[in-house]
Amino acid sequence: MSQFKDATAIVGIGQTEFAKSLDATEMELACRAVLAALDDAGIDPSEVDALGSFTLETTDEYELARSCGLGEIVHFAQVPYGGGAACATVGHVAMAVATGVANVGVAWRSRKRGARTARNWSQVSQRVDDQWKYSRPYGLVRPVDEVALLTRRYMHEYGATRDHLANVALACRAHANRNPAAFMFERTMTREQYMEARWISEPLCLFDNCLESDGALAAVIVRADRARDCRQKPAYIHAYSQGLSTQHQVMVDYHSANPLRGCSWPVAANLWRQSDFAPKDVDVAQLYDAFTPLILLSLEAYGFCAVGEAPAFTENGALQLGGRLPINTSGGGLSEAYVHGMNLVTEGVRQVRGTSTAQVEGATVSLVTSAAAVPTGALLLRGD
Amino acid sequence: MSQFKDATAIVGIGQTEFAKSLDATEMELACRAVLAALDDAGIDPSEVDALGSFTLETTDEYELARSCGLGEIVHFAQVPYGGGAACATVGHVAMAVATGVANVGVAWRSRKRGARTARNWSQVSQRVDDQWKYSRPYGLVRPVDEVALLTRRYMHEYGATRDHLANVALACRAHANRNPAAFMFERTMTREQYMEARWISEPLCLFDNCLESDGALAAVIVRADRARDCRQKPAYIHAYSQGLSTQHQVMVDYHSANPLRGCSWPVAANLWRQSDFAPKDVDVAQLYDAFTPLILLSLEAYGFCAVGEAPAFTENGALQLGGRLPINTSGGGLSEAYVHGMNLVTEGVRQVRGTSTAQVEGATVSLVTSAAAVPTGALLLRGD
Repeated sequence: MSQFKDATAIVGIGQTEFAKSLDATEMELACRAVLAALDDAGIDPSEVDALGSFTLETTDEYELARSCGLGEIVHFAQVPYGGGAACATVGHVAMAVATGVANVGVAWRSRKRGARTARNWSQVSQRVDDQWKYSRPYGLVRPVDEVALLTRRYMHEYGATRDHLANVALACRAHANRNPAAFMFERTMTREQYMEARWISEPLCLFDNCLESDGALAAVIVRADRARDCRQKPAYIHAYSQGLSTQHQVMVDYHSANPLRGCSWPVAANLWRQSDFAPKDVDVAQLYDAFTPLILLSLEAYGFCAVGEAPAFTENGALQLGGRLPINTSGGGLSEAYVHGMNLVTEGVRQVRGTSTAQVEGATVSLVTSAAAVPTGALLLRGD
Repeated sequence: MSQFKDATAIVGIGQTEFAKSLDATEMELACRAVLAALDDAGIDPSEVDALGSFTLETTDEYELARSCGLGEIVHFAQVPYGGGAACATVGHVAMAVATGVANVGVAWRSRKRGARTARNWSQVSQRVDDQWKYSRPYGLVRPVDEVALLTRRYMHEYGATRDHLANVALACRAHANRNPAAFMFERTMTREQYMEARWISEPLCLFDNCLESDGALAAVIVRADRARDCRQKPAYIHAYSQGLSTQHQVMVDYHSANPLRGCSWPVAANLWRQSDFAPKDVDVAQLYDAFTPLILLSLEAYGFCAVGEAPAFTENGALQLGGRLPINTSGGGLSEAYVHGMNLVTEGVRQVRGTSTAQVEGATVSLVTSAAAVPTGALLLRGD
């Protein structure tokens, strides 16, 4: 088998509106996003034969196929670990297409806050019978509590301050303010507002946390030769990998010799191994931002700076449009919508198309990552 | 990208003992099977970088990786739909290896009858809030009830009788009687015993149903060039596909124009499309046998005979060693062990190695299928 590099491309993206609460079911939202993505690609639903989704997804593959009028489905894979899944749902479908097992793949995520699987950590009842029993009784109940402890450690080790976390939150908000589809399009934020926000889990305040939103997104993947004939400029899947830390537990790996070296490290190593590019070549990055400190960890894991240097990296507007590495240019999970990172994939595609509302001029190398705090994945997209 | 055909091979298989009840946890059984498969391949655990499993699996990827001392994991996918998953867990890992994203893949299944996810249909409590609400109140509670109704329809349409179902059960039992690892190794069965067995869900008797057993199995997948240097004779993955019926519901697709045309049909079409072989070239088949009538449906779906001709196909010992198409040569789910079909994968490998206890002489083309009653998959393995 020859190479996977640039063998497939994302040729269609679609989404629903994002809101605090939508009336449609998760299945209806999923269908709307998938059909919008196919329409964007100019591909008939009946051509779709491969599907990728989250284990958290509540819409079964056959229900989506029936409801959208898809073709004979010959590939379907699911990805576990919540926010770690988005890039891999695309990657697995790309593998099925690249190997010729399938021809047209769709990856999607539909999420409603009130759904059965949307906030599974909040649904643990009387008994905690798995590994969570080692942390929950001590107050690590919500994901934010787990990440807050990790953030304390990071601040202690490297001198990061709340100002560095604010740099992340303010960049995402500034980009959302340019994106009419973003939840926070009309809501600006100042550093003072950030500093005065209430604690959610100290040292993380309200604005260090992603939004809670309803919505769905989808992406369409075909082989590169077909991509060149599609309606949109292709976003080639240049490199792709997943990764995990064997010391992982819940949202972090407290048991590792170095808990700050999380699941993103093996992803990054395998991504760059396959790539013609290095971190310095990346024009724009969509870094999973359920919580602001994950951006600092990701900047180090993916090699944009050395370990401990991420706080300084965020200074002088580096993460904003016009800066050294604009991130989350649609607003990300912090300010566009929180749909388990599927909106980072679609924005990564828009950047290589040149159609973002916070477009990095001439962007051709576009990184997208999934959650740094759990077993995860990443996509390196390339324009022509 | 060039072809997927024969690009990868299964080079190691491993299993635990099979019993009605094992003391070890599912995680421990999973680890034992994975380590046995790696030992069979002669590959060190630290080389494993890709994992494939069931959404039903209770052992997380990172726990398996930590416990077995695996390498940096860069691929993991899960497959939904219970017994439909086994072949696809192998197929997805093979894609990751073929595309060069990963190097050494392991697919596994560990199952204990008492586990949280082992018999999920039995764990529905007060409320049925999904599609099952359309069938459960009418008595379609267990999988066997759903398949019994389908079997009635098949008997009505094509004149199948209990003797044809017995042909399947007796073939599997005869093969188990040659396999010391099989649950039913020492328990022979006659046609009379079959006919006199108690109903489970008429027209399906005790011996139309698979065993309930604890156990685990695993398979190791590498690229073909490496496979040739491994300890065992490679079982090349010649073709692979999944498939589903968009009218699927629970275990069958009652809403289809033809409910007897289930999820295996698109699998078979895509499998043969990719293959150098036709059904007539298949030397031996492991056909998923949670229930005997699934074999009749599979014989037709995979093209071994025309629709309605499967009952006649089973006559004259056709399914037994020495017959036209020996099936389930380790005893299958009916008489070796029921581990959601992962034992069919390992036996398919043994046949092309020439090491089965019911060896088809000179077998080089070996078909393995997953559950015909749900969204499913199949592997066509090839020897040298």
